[in-house]
Amino acid sequence: MRAREMAEEYPVTSLDSDAFEAARSLATHRMPGLVVTDRNGRPHSVLGASQVVRFLVPRYVQDDPSLAGVVDEQFADRVADKLTGRTVRDLLPDDPIELAVADADDTVVEVAAVMARTRCPLVAVIDHDKNIVGVITASRLLQRALGC
Amino acid sequence: MRAREMAEEYPVTSLDSDAFEAARSLATHRMPGLVVTDRNGRPHSVLGASQVVRFLVPRYVQDDPSLAGVVDEQFADRVADKLTGRTVRDLLPDDPIELAVADADDTVVEVAAVMARTRCPLVAVIDHDKNIVGVITASRLLQRALGC
Repeated sequence: MRAREMAEEYPVTSLDSDAFEAARSLATHRMPGLVVTDRNGRPHSVLGASQVVRFLVPRYVQDDPSLAGVVDEQFADRVADKLTGRTVRDLLPDDPIELAVADADDTVVEVAAVMARTRCPLVAVIDHDKNIVGVITASRLLQRALGC
Repeated sequence: MRAREMAEEYPVTSLDSDAFEAARSLATHRMPGLVVTDRNGRPHSVLGASQVVRFLVPRYVQDDPSLAGVVDEQFADRVADKLTGRTVRDLLPDDPIELAVADADDTVVEVAAVMARTRCPLVAVIDHDKNIVGVITASRLLQRALGC
């Protein structure tokens, strides 16, 4: 089996997409992360849901969670405020999780090798034009390897 | 809303559980990771599906994926061989992802603060006896924060 046949649909956003929409996509699809592309649709990085949470929590509360009560009341308002007018690029950390990439013709083991080396839980599968044809998650790979 | 009400069921394994069963659980539930407890049922760490993939791919193929062809034919056999007789403890890296923990009475913002600080995409919610009553994922937290 080749990467092309293993790849599945996966929510994708882009660096210039609206931050609020990206956060909503993570929430409604209940996804641990989104694939982020650059403006040409090429694979760029992964936006983890926990990174968005991090973006929303004030620095002083991260450092001292006992101060969380101060924010509690206005958290929903704060979330809207922080995300409005921002892009996905703003949500990404300075060192975003690089998205692992495999060719559509790669074998299962080649995909596994890329995932193992990059430690990225998602591999974007690209065609000859470097367009994303789908994504292979670590659990999909295990499913295939174990024959579940 | 308190952590107790936000927490959801989540697949849990333990350090001494069978490695093959844990891998199968990741594959069949299509989960990005499992919560790992110690022998007393206390939260210990997260076993990421990509970590299991890493465990299964020979070191020399990780370093040079062009050698993947050598393994391709026997990969399914290799997977069974590598996992049989092993425990979850063997699958974990030397520096496993520490599982973030929140108290059942913590608020949404306190849970978010713990997640932000630990960068762990899962927070185990524990009761007064330190038993796990459920798990809050980053996407669940966003769902709540955005009111989706």
